[in-house]
Amino acid sequence: MGKQLLQTLSHEEQILLLDILFTQQYALDLVSCELADIENGEKQVDEKRYQQLLRLYDRLLQETYDFT
Amino acid sequence: MGKQLLQTLSHEEQILLLDILFTQQYALDLVSCELADIENGEKQVDEKRYQQLLRLYDRLLQETYDFT
Repeated sequence: MGKQLLQTLSHEEQILLLDILFTQQYALDLVSCELADIENGEKQVDEKRYQQLLRLYDRLLQETYDFT
Repeated sequence: MGKQLLQTLSHEEQILLLDILFTQQYALDLVSCELADIENGEKQVDEKRYQQLLRLYDRLLQETYDFT
């Protein structure tokens, strides 16, 4: 259901959602929730997806604590 | 800080974040948190932004409860 909904959103709506994600400072928590679900076995993803998530998490963590 | 970080992300990273937002089913909550901050005076936005958020909230609400 989620993926279909994402594809129906306009580019402007997608950017608005991302913008709120960062203004609410929830991006890092969101990615860590996803990683936790995978690492505790609640969710299965392929290795490529898992590596993408790890890289994204590191980037967000590094950029979040570099700016403060 | 958030807006700068968003702009440094690649398109692939932005799509990955949106994808997680929907797989974690947190998009609707995120927009309602932003609206709540505005409506209780914690956050000031211009009318255009507020109307965009209301439209996005309605779309997400309608699409979320239409698929179940």
